[in-house]
Amino acid sequence: MKKLINKPEDLVPESLAGMAAAHSDLINVNYNPNYIVRADAPIQGKVGIVSGGGSGHEPMHGGLVGMGMLDAACPGEVFTSPTPDQMEAATKAVNGGAGALHIVKNYTGDVMNFEMAAELCLAEGIDVEAVVINDDVAVKDSLYTAGRRGVGITVLAEKICGAAAEQKQDLKKVADICRQVNANGRSMGMALTSCAVPSAGKPTFEIGADEMEIGIGIHGEPGRERMPLKTAREIVGIMSAAIISDLPFQSGDSVIVMVNGMGGTPLIELYLVFHELNEVCKGKGIKIVRQLIGNYITSLEMAGCSITLLKTNDELLKLWDAPVHTPALRWGV
Amino acid sequence: MKKLINKPEDLVPESLAGMAAAHSDLINVNYNPNYIVRADAPIQGKVGIVSGGGSGHEPMHGGLVGMGMLDAACPGEVFTSPTPDQMEAATKAVNGGAGALHIVKNYTGDVMNFEMAAELCLAEGIDVEAVVINDDVAVKDSLYTAGRRGVGITVLAEKICGAAAEQKQDLKKVADICRQVNANGRSMGMALTSCAVPSAGKPTFEIGADEMEIGIGIHGEPGRERMPLKTAREIVGIMSAAIISDLPFQSGDSVIVMVNGMGGTPLIELYLVFHELNEVCKGKGIKIVRQLIGNYITSLEMAGCSITLLKTNDELLKLWDAPVHTPALRWGV
Repeated sequence: MKKLINKPEDLVPESLAGMAAAHSDLINVNYNPNYIVRADAPIQGKVGIVSGGGSGHEPMHGGLVGMGMLDAACPGEVFTSPTPDQMEAATKAVNGGAGALHIVKNYTGDVMNFEMAAELCLAEGIDVEAVVINDDVAVKDSLYTAGRRGVGITVLAEKICGAAAEQKQDLKKVADICRQVNANGRSMGMALTSCAVPSAGKPTFEIGADEMEIGIGIHGEPGRERMPLKTAREIVGIMSAAIISDLPFQSGDSVIVMVNGMGGTPLIELYLVFHELNEVCKGKGIKIVRQLIGNYITSLEMAGCSITLLKTNDELLKLWDAPVHTPALRWGV
Repeated sequence: MKKLINKPEDLVPESLAGMAAAHSDLINVNYNPNYIVRADAPIQGKVGIVSGGGSGHEPMHGGLVGMGMLDAACPGEVFTSPTPDQMEAATKAVNGGAGALHIVKNYTGDVMNFEMAAELCLAEGIDVEAVVINDDVAVKDSLYTAGRRGVGITVLAEKICGAAAEQKQDLKKVADICRQVNANGRSMGMALTSCAVPSAGKPTFEIGADEMEIGIGIHGEPGRERMPLKTAREIVGIMSAAIISDLPFQSGDSVIVMVNGMGGTPLIELYLVFHELNEVCKGKGIKIVRQLIGNYITSLEMAGCSITLLKTNDELLKLWDAPVHTPALRWGV
């Protein structure tokens, strides 16, 4: 598959250099170990929010660093966990004396490396809490993962916890909010096409010209079911039924929704997907009070989408609405 | 090519319904004729900024309607000009007594239909000026176009003219600013893959597994040259040389830059392209003072990118920095 790159091994640092040049007002990039950090870090008395994961899911996480969201993000190689030394260095860089929250997507490598980093930080006197996000209802146990995978709720958790930290809430409270978001959020994805890891040079999986994969993972790992392509209405019906029945979301619930593009799906289709989801929610008495529609947690050039629902309340909604200023998400400033 | 749609003929209205549901605080959608209009239109004494064109280029134009940018956008069928009655109705809906500016991309159908709409509006006593955007340096005369095509500068012109109108500058002045932006802006695109119009059901053009097309149009119409895939550095070198030599941009110039994804290109690659462009500009003494990096004027699911440079000055930069609040572009509010 064709890519706009130089050498596969230079993709991550060269893309980071582009981010650094574009957003020097918001972020700094450190190389070796690689991490993206708020330009004004560390902030005394504020909990530092640190996340990270394999590259290839942009704008997550580096594009979500900035005021009101992440303090630092650690990008690994494409679809590969960052290393503990990246996470340790990033955590130290954002430590303002109030400790750090690690927001970790549930993939075996990420969880293990963030655990090692937390131990290193604790040994150096930095208080660290970690919350593992596992919102994907599609499958239990998968390639790369024991239990459910962490997907779209990660973006929402980073926004909401970032706002709480900005208000100088303490580490225990910010971590509690993160667990609350994870507990009340559910997601599911689907793909029309594969993606290709640059160093592999070939599609991650094969899929027929009339097939789709329901419940796909963000690295192209297997989902629930391969089936013939259906209409958007049928696809949203399948995905939303799996999500809604799982929590379950109920009539009277207010939800924050994300309709996320996997990287290769046009915005015109994502709005159509949102329309179908809105109809489903209206039919079930579930009120969509906020929404993100666009590419937020991607899988390189994969065509497809994911749907995320978060049951919300006044506290979470206020944190959601609080100002944010990152390369990818900005409001109120 | 697989799509997240129901029936091809329902794509545009169903996607508009999604926009209406998602952004009711910012916009209203009118159907038959189809147009998207600011929720607070018409604004007395403010020039109304109206644009439009074929669908399939989202977020342009509907996602650019809102405070500080467009007052209304007319979406045609996919890659098909909207009709004069859409443009006339949209212009009337935003008429606050100060006239309207039509920002028109240079495609034969769009130009002809906007001319007819302007005549209809003038006959009804609404003062209309039209500015035709023709910033694409790739080719002169093309499928759909006499002269140069209108591409990326459209997005920048809509932002800058929207800000001028928001400040209640008069129609002549807002139109002059639009002409100034067009005169000082240049763009060029390239594609790695084709796109497919939903109703056609097959790729718009064929392209080999190791080929790219330099100078592609936003409907997949032919560019300058088909050639073997090169590195991002070489590609940016070719594109930036064509753009920079055309105006020409010179050492000491300040520029606003857009690195635009065609719809199917991952953000990690767009940041790498921006890095390469930044290196070229630094080498030539051209200072990038602002940038947009992402999907703004797309071609459905086409993989590829375009580069836009606008030579700027204090006046244009202040208008660029003014607050904007649309579904796709937001800052300062």
